[in-house]
Amino acid sequence: MTIQRKKITVVGAGFTGATTALMIAQKELGDVVLVDIPQLENPTKGKALDMLEASPIQGFDSNIVGTSDYEDAADSDIVIITAGIARKPGMSRDDLVNTNAGIVKSVCENIKRYCPDSIVIILSNPVDAMTYAAYHALGFPKNRVIGQSGVLDTARYCTFIAQELNVSVEDVRGFVLGGHGDDMVPLVRYSSVGGIPIESLISEDRIESIVERTRVGGGEIVNLLGNGSAYYAPAASLVQMTEAILKDKKRIIPVIAYLEGEYGYHDLFLGVPTILGGGGIERIFELDLTAEEKAALDQSAESVRNVMSVVTV
Amino acid sequence: MTIQRKKITVVGAGFTGATTALMIAQKELGDVVLVDIPQLENPTKGKALDMLEASPIQGFDSNIVGTSDYEDAADSDIVIITAGIARKPGMSRDDLVNTNAGIVKSVCENIKRYCPDSIVIILSNPVDAMTYAAYHALGFPKNRVIGQSGVLDTARYCTFIAQELNVSVEDVRGFVLGGHGDDMVPLVRYSSVGGIPIESLISEDRIESIVERTRVGGGEIVNLLGNGSAYYAPAASLVQMTEAILKDKKRIIPVIAYLEGEYGYHDLFLGVPTILGGGGIERIFELDLTAEEKAALDQSAESVRNVMSVVTV
Amino acid sequence: MTIQRKKITVVGAGFTGATTALMIAQKELGDVVLVDIPQLENPTKGKALDMLEASPIQGFDSNIVGTSDYEDAADSDIVIITAGIARKPGMSRDDLVNTNAGIVKSVCENIKRYCPDSIVIILSNPVDAMTYAAYHALGFPKNRVIGQSGVLDTARYCTFIAQELNVSVEDVRGFVLGGHGDDMVPLVRYSSVGGIPIESLISEDRIESIVERTRVGGGEIVNLLGNGSAYYAPAASLVQMTEAILKDKKRIIPVIAYLEGEYGYHDLFLGVPTILGGGGIERIFELDLTAEEKAALDQSAESVRNVMSVVTV
Amino acid sequence: MTIQRKKITVVGAGFTGATTALMIAQKELGDVVLVDIPQLENPTKGKALDMLEASPIQGFDSNIVGTSDYEDAADSDIVIITAGIARKPGMSRDDLVNTNAGIVKSVCENIKRYCPDSIVIILSNPVDAMTYAAYHALGFPKNRVIGQSGVLDTARYCTFIAQELNVSVEDVRGFVLGGHGDDMVPLVRYSSVGGIPIESLISEDRIESIVERTRVGGGEIVNLLGNGSAYYAPAASLVQMTEAILKDKKRIIPVIAYLEGEYGYHDLFLGVPTILGGGGIERIFELDLTAEEKAALDQSAESVRNVMSVVTV
Repeated sequence: MTIQRKKITVVGAGFTGATTALMIAQKELGDVVLVDIPQLENPTKGKALDMLEASPIQGFDSNIVGTSDYEDAADSDIVIITAGIARKPGMSRDDLVNTNAGIVKSVCENIKRYCPDSIVIILSNPVDAMTYAAYHALGFPKNRVIGQSGVLDTARYCTFIAQELNVSVEDVRGFVLGGHGDDMVPLVRYSSVGGIPIESLISEDRIESIVERTRVGGGEIVNLLGNGSAYYAPAASLVQMTEAILKDKKRIIPVIAYLEGEYGYHDLFLGVPTILGGGGIERIFELDLTAEEKAALDQSAESVRNVMSVVTV
Repeated sequence: MTIQRKKITVVGAGFTGATTALMIAQKELGDVVLVDIPQLENPTKGKALDMLEASPIQGFDSNIVGTSDYEDAADSDIVIITAGIARKPGMSRDDLVNTNAGIVKSVCENIKRYCPDSIVIILSNPVDAMTYAAYHALGFPKNRVIGQSGVLDTARYCTFIAQELNVSVEDVRGFVLGGHGDDMVPLVRYSSVGGIPIESLISEDRIESIVERTRVGGGEIVNLLGNGSAYYAPAASLVQMTEAILKDKKRIIPVIAYLEGEYGYHDLFLGVPTILGGGGIERIFELDLTAEEKAALDQSAESVRNVMSVVTV
Repeated sequence: MTIQRKKITVVGAGFTGATTALMIAQKELGDVVLVDIPQLENPTKGKALDMLEASPIQGFDSNIVGTSDYEDAADSDIVIITAGIARKPGMSRDDLVNTNAGIVKSVCENIKRYCPDSIVIILSNPVDAMTYAAYHALGFPKNRVIGQSGVLDTARYCTFIAQELNVSVEDVRGFVLGGHGDDMVPLVRYSSVGGIPIESLISEDRIESIVERTRVGGGEIVNLLGNGSAYYAPAASLVQMTEAILKDKKRIIPVIAYLEGEYGYHDLFLGVPTILGGGGIERIFELDLTAEEKAALDQSAESVRNVMSVVTV
Repeated sequence: MTIQRKKITVVGAGFTGATTALMIAQKELGDVVLVDIPQLENPTKGKALDMLEASPIQGFDSNIVGTSDYEDAADSDIVIITAGIARKPGMSRDDLVNTNAGIVKSVCENIKRYCPDSIVIILSNPVDAMTYAAYHALGFPKNRVIGQSGVLDTARYCTFIAQELNVSVEDVRGFVLGGHGDDMVPLVRYSSVGGIPIESLISEDRIESIVERTRVGGGEIVNLLGNGSAYYAPAASLVQMTEAILKDKKRIIPVIAYLEGEYGYHDLFLGVPTILGGGGIERIFELDLTAEEKAALDQSAESVRNVMSVVTV
């Protein structure tokens, strides 16, 4: 009868994982366990401690623990997987598949053992395939295995629209279907600022250029950084999903979900609009697509399937 | 007659500077300019863009720009200097003085030129000496040149006390005078939880051990990380000071201030409790110290003076 | 060169005005002056003091002062007018015009004198006509005289949509043009959840019923309360507008703006989508309307003009 | 395995209860049920709906329901009792005992039936006696029956100290023992700003005057309002306690707790410093008091016992 804090485990203490841990703690969503491999145990502990030492300043009561022992993650409500090697400049996402699938599967064995009731969110790259790998390794119901891609793609898209029009980001609404990055299918007709369709405010040319920039948004950051990839916006994306679930907010969020017939696809993980709440993915919205949009989505699905086929499950 | 956003410049786009920029933007304290050297212009732009792309998710309307051109920082209300090389494992803070003093002076030339009315907060290491270097390079009134050390030391101290007693960090109040880290002078009798002096709740031994751990708190993180130093709690410290000034909160915050007779010291930058508000340092509190405390503060002052003496102004 | 807090004056210390004052203070948007007539000076002071006594608990540093003396409001950045008698059950909004216009004019004389550079937001009922009265009494440029109606109407509309679909309010986007309440013109085709048009998720019947409920949303609360009218959502609406201006957020918000040709109307105050930023109303969006929508807007404009005609300026 | 929102019931939909409900919802601590008597069912529904209509503007996903049926409150995690008639100008708190004890007992019968596992927070006046009445009517363990008084008294005390010194409320720490208002026992030596004892910053005279003003702080508001009593700061107090419990923050908060030997008192409800966490009152701190302080506390205890003796249990 004692009320307990929620528990969130973040696997992978790289920049994205660490930033995610901090943002979760700052929002007091629960206690955070940051896990990485034994060789990185000390740096993981160091990052966790550094974050914790910010708590008296920012006034958040969330414990943050760094560890390499999954027992510390036991009975987590949510597990976020950011583990995996990062995409480097010039590296295709496909190159990452084999290495990262192995990492993800190994992580999932531990989640299965220590957090059998958790909801799992996957960020590891290439994310569609890694969500697929996690799904099979975990054996959890499909509503509890969720990939992140659409929140980030949409956020980039909205950032560029807000800049174009010099308006508040709070009033921009983008909409993206399909695979991550290059494969994303933006539904321009569903994009608006303050409810006003962007097509009536921005020229076709500029919209096209914004869409194109969004597609390669991850690469833009990779190229600028020179060494590493984006982590602030990816972390914020993971936290939004985590908050939607932990607070049962029933937010409408595009995530990578397991499809069993939706949009005509079977046994495929693809980015679709869903309701995220206390049960994980509580609903998948099936939209009426134009022929053009459906063709683009088919191509995205095909592309995802190609990467997925590399994964042995 | 148009209301404009405040403008905050963060010099140094390393982990501390970047994290500071993000936290300022998330709080919508104003628009943020992240500056680093020309060789790092692209990574600086990359970090700024990555942060900006988190804004539609987190709903903050603060522009964040990465640049190597101080013109972009023109007319900032606040400038935060995090530039300088980082302390490495085994390296004493004194080793950093010459290199970092050069960096800080060069930064200050630009601040003087482009942001003559700004309030300047210094974090660069060793911070007491770097604040002194900045003060002379800037030629600003003393209330507008402020070093950070006490917020961080206090935060670490409070973290350890909260852990010891398993209580909310919101209710722990620590108190630290003097130089940063090794030289800090904690006033244990002014430390309390929920108003209750810790001396009545924690044994003398344990308090001593907490104080000792706080003194080497920076080193603890350095040793754990193996490569680099703390940045989450330092960034949070800078942001608390920035917020106190921009919102004219008149918070009582220990900062490194220029002393002209306070506590019997002259022409010295030392950590003392102050009121931080719209005018920068608005008041310095002079406390009655015990003989023991005064001796410890004298030693800390001496130690700071030694480092300061290395700086050519 | 000292940074000062913004200053916001709320005229009318009834439930709406007081709630508005509290919400502004909680957000630390600036210091708040709550003004009412001399006969109510003590209760006004009492409410302000009670709010202020919440500040150590909630951690906000905003002064809140209750007064009947407009000198205390001098040099406010924003003035919000909530003064006027409340609509009672069975009372038409038109009945309020004469009384409230007199009150608003008298308030505006004081604003003109003490806050000549302020941006003024009007809530007093009937709001379209009262904004018109204020505009003439103030003699301020049109961008600095703004009526509230669309934020509240849209909020009610979005509440009902969120309930209908059991989704997060964060993902509902409604859109309302024209006069307040009975006269509002919802653009259903611009209404969406998570970017998905509601027309594809809610039946036509149910949408119609939601729209109808929104139109009489003010009356629904009046009837339930039995004695008095809504104030929580109206206050939140005023605060959103205030925040947009003080932080120069450039939010897209439907407000009552002075039209000089937009949508074909001249010398009329009507609810239209605008950009609210540091300059007040920075842009009015003119949307392409269907014939049906334009007809509804014409009717709303006509209705507003009828009420406006009662006001002597 | 679905994550569900917490549920908080607020009994009494007057100003304090309604404001409490709103603040809980704004913080997304859970769904809120606002209960009042059948004769006030409609106004209660009206207030709840008005608050809910603020949610799309402020972005909180908490349901708020107004009702007169306790079944709607079933299985609440926390129940807050604000019911009772208000203190009027000139009315002693003792006059309220009989009426309000009857109300509280009747409310507790419903809580016992519908929310047998809840933690109950009592505000009804006179609060010491009402907490005692609730304790007996509920038959819950003592850790789950908590009266509010010290948060409010402390908040007022801190407000006056912050004003006296013109410093941030965030840095003022007050400390109050004993009964509410007139009977409170402020421990001046435990009161500080930024850790600095106020005795070294404020003259004895002024401190005495601040303490005296705090004692009659409730009456000051009653006299100013002319009709009714404080509700903003009381509501904030209740919300702080609620948040401490629901987030298991383990905050150190002075509350009215059941004493079984602490401070030498038995079978008495008195204001003492406690740890509030997921288990309700998790610890009571026993402080070493000076003879003078103990005498004042004895007097306060005696005064509370007198009022308690009026209550039939």
